[in-house]
Amino acid sequence: MTDDEHSSHIYLDTAASTPVADEVIAEMLPYLKEQYGNPSSIHKFGRETTRAIHLARKRVAEMIGASSPREITFTSGGTEANNLALKGTAIHVKSKMTKKNMIITSSIEHDAVLEPCKDLEDRGFVIIRLPVTGEGLVRPSELKNMISDNVALVSIMYANNEVGTIQPIKELVEIAHQAGTLFHTDAVQAAGKLPLNVKNLGVDMMSLSSHKINGPKGVGALYIRSDLKILPIIHGGGQEWYLRSGTENVPGIVGFGKACELANKEMGHYQGHVAGLRNYLVERVLKEIPRSRLNGLRTERIANNAHFTFFGVNGEDLIIKLDENGIAASTGSACSVKKQKQSHVLKAMGFSYEEITGSLRLSLGTHNTKDEIDRAVNVLSSIIKELRELSPFESKSM
Amino acid sequence: MTDDEHSSHIYLDTAASTPVADEVIAEMLPYLKEQYGNPSSIHKFGRETTRAIHLARKRVAEMIGASSPREITFTSGGTEANNLALKGTAIHVKSKMTKKNMIITSSIEHDAVLEPCKDLEDRGFVIIRLPVTGEGLVRPSELKNMISDNVALVSIMYANNEVGTIQPIKELVEIAHQAGTLFHTDAVQAAGKLPLNVKNLGVDMMSLSSHKINGPKGVGALYIRSDLKILPIIHGGGQEWYLRSGTENVPGIVGFGKACELANKEMGHYQGHVAGLRNYLVERVLKEIPRSRLNGLRTERIANNAHFTFFGVNGEDLIIKLDENGIAASTGSACSVKKQKQSHVLKAMGFSYEEITGSLRLSLGTHNTKDEIDRAVNVLSSIIKELRELSPFESKSM
Repeated sequence: MTDDEHSSHIYLDTAASTPVADEVIAEMLPYLKEQYGNPSSIHKFGRETTRAIHLARKRVAEMIGASSPREITFTSGGTEANNLALKGTAIHVKSKMTKKNMIITSSIEHDAVLEPCKDLEDRGFVIIRLPVTGEGLVRPSELKNMISDNVALVSIMYANNEVGTIQPIKELVEIAHQAGTLFHTDAVQAAGKLPLNVKNLGVDMMSLSSHKINGPKGVGALYIRSDLKILPIIHGGGQEWYLRSGTENVPGIVGFGKACELANKEMGHYQGHVAGLRNYLVERVLKEIPRSRLNGLRTERIANNAHFTFFGVNGEDLIIKLDENGIAASTGSACSVKKQKQSHVLKAMGFSYEEITGSLRLSLGTHNTKDEIDRAVNVLSSIIKELRELSPFESKSM
Repeated sequence: MTDDEHSSHIYLDTAASTPVADEVIAEMLPYLKEQYGNPSSIHKFGRETTRAIHLARKRVAEMIGASSPREITFTSGGTEANNLALKGTAIHVKSKMTKKNMIITSSIEHDAVLEPCKDLEDRGFVIIRLPVTGEGLVRPSELKNMISDNVALVSIMYANNEVGTIQPIKELVEIAHQAGTLFHTDAVQAAGKLPLNVKNLGVDMMSLSSHKINGPKGVGALYIRSDLKILPIIHGGGQEWYLRSGTENVPGIVGFGKACELANKEMGHYQGHVAGLRNYLVERVLKEIPRSRLNGLRTERIANNAHFTFFGVNGEDLIIKLDENGIAASTGSACSVKKQKQSHVLKAMGFSYEEITGSLRLSLGTHNTKDEIDRAVNVLSSIIKELRELSPFESKSM
């Protein structure tokens, strides 16, 4: 597609991936061009990439208020960070021959948490998946009920990727710590939208992804509190504190570092601009489109997320029609869509088949304008009208 | 460092990492800029990145003569590819409750093979590390002696990263297959230098890395024969045939695909130009620098590699002095240097402490010129003379 075609498109799927910021690309380019040394090499070329990684690590550490860059381990993305946190902790705890053989998570985590948990279940761990409210909230009382000193780790996401609900992490961490249990949070969707200070939150580990905050794909990080020991899942040359071997993705890491710096600096603007547009979008949709509903919490949700159910409409038809009209949207997690798997998040929230089928996620970014939102709502409104008119189900039920 | 400073530098460390080709960067840029969709999204932005990954997969498959792009699984690099091959096979075979609990590898593999093997050893597998000759060659007879139907997998590198010795993979594969054992090869150093046809070689799995063939860092692939089942080590959204979850590193994958296409097309030129320069380098060094020795085999070695021992000199002093004179070189594996670990490869080749200490690897690329080689040999020659004059050991022994 040409630049022109692209610019006429309205991208409302930042929860799936974001445009890379120009400043980020500018910082990456030297590390794709002249700075091609292997950071493990001791000559000039190697030292320069080592320095670049160090700066990036510092920037990531600063974004989340870590005590030291030493607490940041770069990975190939959020998924690997989650795998490292869960498996690295579980296998280490198991090796110490304690009775800690349980992991508590929630029923609305991303597959990047639920699937490693399933793998650990196959290896003999007991996994408890906490229920959520109709708005996708994990109740602290539920964690309190299930926690015990058999639990090695609690892993609960900071903000949900489908409905945007923000979890009461601080409160959940306190419950875990009172029981002597470690706490990990998948902050992939929260980054850039919420303050991520690991000290304030009290978390022991935190997963981050670059491409959700206007950084490049293929890079992420796991924050690991400095006095915490976990085991690697990828072994080799011993890079990243022997926790994640493999020649470092230097341009990616540099870009991620810059993206963290920008996200930190621009969070105020982000929260203002993006939440402003999102609120305007929600208001117009609920007012102008009949039988529409906003899912999740109204206030305790990340700034970019709007998640609706349009009754009597199939969400998949909706995103195809929106796409034909130049609007990029999603029914839910990008990863699940191609597999045509029904959203486990909405199921856990107690949604009926019709409520799930009619769901649509619009996720915004700083690149969006009010004009785009107006155009998107107009298109959405007329598509829904058209689809409802065509629907045999609708004509019967109306 | 500025472009000017950089261009006056002589980079002789392509075994550690290579400059990214301009054509590669050109193909990557659109996927850092306007093409930022998540390949799992079904809208236009997603479909375009999906198409880009498909083309890259086809190019990688073509480079190694795979039957189908379906046999290529993208990873974050060569290290992850090796981890996936070794652990993915071992854990799968173990889950079938057979008696196959052994893995055979060689004593001169990269840490990205040896360390996952050590991890599997801790999990109850038996690891056999085959010895090598003084030139770093795995003798097929050694494999024949050790193979049995208890062996789940044989993993032997195609070409060694330190001394460049090419292994008789075809012959080794036949021995493994006769015993009903799978064969994996780490072809990270061989790619771009040797024909990698998986059918001709007969291998069941092959690891590749992008940044060793003028592609970007942070991406690699594992070839897995289509009828072969292995298990993932990173779980999540189910990308890469459910074998390697995580949002795809689209720009990296695109760049890697282009690098494979170029490597395939330019292998003739590479072998001619680079081996020509390398042979010239070796000839001058052996003729002009007293008490120097080429390590490894003279002919059965990859085109870019020259590995020497300079008796009475410390290799680490040598690379520091070379660096001061604008020449990037290495004593051996980049990963080991910072850890100041003595080369396990040279030890396995039976080298004495003095032979190991005095070793230097110069690895060339298409970017090098005859003039650079001349300058490098002149500098090397005078540094060695200087170091030998300063050495108390030398003054005693001379």
